[in-house]
Amino acid sequence: MRDIVGVEAELYEYLFSEFKRIAGNRGFQPVITPTVEYYRLFEAKSGEEIKNSMYVFEDKAGRLLALRPEVTASVVRVYLRLLRALPKPIRLYYIAQCFRYEEPQHARYREFWQGGLEILGDPDVNADLSVALTASEFLDTIGVKHVYIVGNVSIYRNIMRSFNIEEEVQDRILHLIDKEKIDSAIEEVKLRGGSEAAEIIYKVLSARTLDDVESYLQDLRTTLGDLYEKTLQEHARTRDFITALQELGYQVVFNPKLVRGLAYYTGLIFEYKAVDKGLEVSIGGGGRYDGLSVVYNGPFEYFTGLALGLDRIALTLSDNFQSQRKRTVCVIVLREVPASAGYRVLRSIPPVFRGFVYRTRSLSKGLEHANKTGCDYVVIIGSAEYEQGKVTVKDMKTGEQVTLSVNSLSEYLHSVT
Amino acid sequence: MRDIVGVEAELYEYLFSEFKRIAGNRGFQPVITPTVEYYRLFEAKSGEEIKNSMYVFEDKAGRLLALRPEVTASVVRVYLRLLRALPKPIRLYYIAQCFRYEEPQHARYREFWQGGLEILGDPDVNADLSVALTASEFLDTIGVKHVYIVGNVSIYRNIMRSFNIEEEVQDRILHLIDKEKIDSAIEEVKLRGGSEAAEIIYKVLSARTLDDVESYLQDLRTTLGDLYEKTLQEHARTRDFITALQELGYQVVFNPKLVRGLAYYTGLIFEYKAVDKGLEVSIGGGGRYDGLSVVYNGPFEYFTGLALGLDRIALTLSDNFQSQRKRTVCVIVLREVPASAGYRVLRSIPPVFRGFVYRTRSLSKGLEHANKTGCDYVVIIGSAEYEQGKVTVKDMKTGEQVTLSVNSLSEYLHSVT
Repeated sequence: MRDIVGVEAELYEYLFSEFKRIAGNRGFQPVITPTVEYYRLFEAKSGEEIKNSMYVFEDKAGRLLALRPEVTASVVRVYLRLLRALPKPIRLYYIAQCFRYEEPQHARYREFWQGGLEILGDPDVNADLSVALTASEFLDTIGVKHVYIVGNVSIYRNIMRSFNIEEEVQDRILHLIDKEKIDSAIEEVKLRGGSEAAEIIYKVLSARTLDDVESYLQDLRTTLGDLYEKTLQEHARTRDFITALQELGYQVVFNPKLVRGLAYYTGLIFEYKAVDKGLEVSIGGGGRYDGLSVVYNGPFEYFTGLALGLDRIALTLSDNFQSQRKRTVCVIVLREVPASAGYRVLRSIPPVFRGFVYRTRSLSKGLEHANKTGCDYVVIIGSAEYEQGKVTVKDMKTGEQVTLSVNSLSEYLHSVT
Repeated sequence: MRDIVGVEAELYEYLFSEFKRIAGNRGFQPVITPTVEYYRLFEAKSGEEIKNSMYVFEDKAGRLLALRPEVTASVVRVYLRLLRALPKPIRLYYIAQCFRYEEPQHARYREFWQGGLEILGDPDVNADLSVALTASEFLDTIGVKHVYIVGNVSIYRNIMRSFNIEEEVQDRILHLIDKEKIDSAIEEVKLRGGSEAAEIIYKVLSARTLDDVESYLQDLRTTLGDLYEKTLQEHARTRDFITALQELGYQVVFNPKLVRGLAYYTGLIFEYKAVDKGLEVSIGGGGRYDGLSVVYNGPFEYFTGLALGLDRIALTLSDNFQSQRKRTVCVIVLREVPASAGYRVLRSIPPVFRGFVYRTRSLSKGLEHANKTGCDYVVIIGSAEYEQGKVTVKDMKTGEQVTLSVNSLSEYLHSVT
């Protein structure tokens, strides 16, 4: 766990507010879910790695709780509980801290911040594009160059289903692929679905282009049977997604080996890579999780979404981030003057300025504080000024100083804006 | 625990952003502390009630952790760890969810949101005024009329100290006063400090005005000994605080029985009351916690701060809060048109509009969705429009419709702004 202070905290607040602003501008509405959920919410479909690194504990009534490792499961729960009657698609965003229990590593924190976008109830690739391009708008705005890595797990799931490999085993095999243990994954497919299944999966995993995958798919028409049409459609989604991103100027890499860590993905998946100090790093990703509502005993629904890792993004930006502070006025009130006089003056300062009151026995101490804290102007209220309804304004950069009536301070500050 | 969705979530986001904006404008800087802290951080000085209702659990390494019940203890920890070298006073703000384990009641949630302001390293009443008036500015801005209730626990602590009542017992006695168990409190003072102590405490508790307290204090010069001057100074702080607030137009009630639930308060304390549906409710408060750094093995330092209960404030506003949504444009892309065309148009829409892309086979379905989701304009891209580089714009209120080139859409929308 970590404390975030100073310019780093300002950077986080900047990321939070820009994410919220851009998501709001693109029609996403906020959702705030609990930090603590029942463990069972994450048990089914979070994936091996997340499950093994959750903070799990019992409350006083003996219920098994978890600090959320991610927010998507909560969003599906909220959808089933509160949002089913809304016109679809439903567009939601969140900023939320999530938790994992593991040994601390560089840029991996036990408490970490996610910015997420989810679209509920839309089977069209437009939903995938909408979350992806809103995230891209955010990344473009904050100045993070990024590349898309795109894959689709549905083809693997459908092939395995055709060979009667059950969903839980599929999840495990996909997990092995995610861990780049291709040999073990193929071994497992062979064990559960036979050597033909293993051969096909291996072939698709080794594809170089979307056209390769398409030609393999054509050979699988009989093998896939009823699932053939669906698989073709999912393949078309991958193509449409990639084409649209490219047409909008983004760099996209198709990678059939891409399988993300979460077990709930069912189709298109994608990841964002950015370059930080010469290294390529993953800064988030997402994909389709159609039908996750069924796992929570609800009716089938279409879902897509993504989450960005805001800690990784903050780290990428930290070297170049400048505190975006407004110009600051320090109102120095000498001790013999009533404190309220300082606040009356403070409240008359135009909102384009940041300002606060410093009360002191000695003017020089006040000026020193204003200087140390980077103030642009000081407004001095000594007893002489106070009695005459005046203030002295000093420009800290030029050293220029002027005494004027309290009533004309606002006008004066407007004039130097 | 609870899910916050729809207009309620928008209200929360509005409160968060206004609080951050106003705190930032008043020179407070963000601090982000962990949601999970070691239990021992809260053990010493959180107060009986909070301690008994914490979420406490062990991690896999057997360390006793707690979901934070409040943030001030963390801020002091962060000060000692990271901020001691900064020029003082240090001004910090936070928005953070906190946790208590208790049976759910009306407007008391197990996970609740606090907006806090803290000033570190300033003994002057100006620090108390600065946090208080910044909170008032926030409450005024969001339209919450509020009254201050002001007390000061230092006089009780100093009297008890003079009678050799140790700090832990002081905390317990103050807790009884907080629970309005005045008789039990006096009983305890009598038991631990004798009947003279009990008499004095009872007298001060029954004071009606600041002048009453002052005259009692004068009689205590010899009893208080070394603590007399300090107690007088604290009394003067109460008076200065109240006077300044009144001079700035706030209503203030002096209440010597005010003792807040937290055991770390050492001097001036205050509470905000608002009226919600005819009932007076507490929406937050704060006070001096000078020396809390010593409890955490640091050097003595001056501290003051406050926290507002944002859930209570949200409830107060919920009846009148209007979603402050920008005017919204729905870009309807018919299925035969590439999805990217919709996003190219979306990105050309002026930022004063909110906008999203809806892709559909049928225009009427698109119009229905735009209508249901309260869109102000739709921009239609069918295949005819697409081929000619045009769009059709429809004003959903007037029904007026115009076809224009993609390039002039931005200009058109500016003209209707």
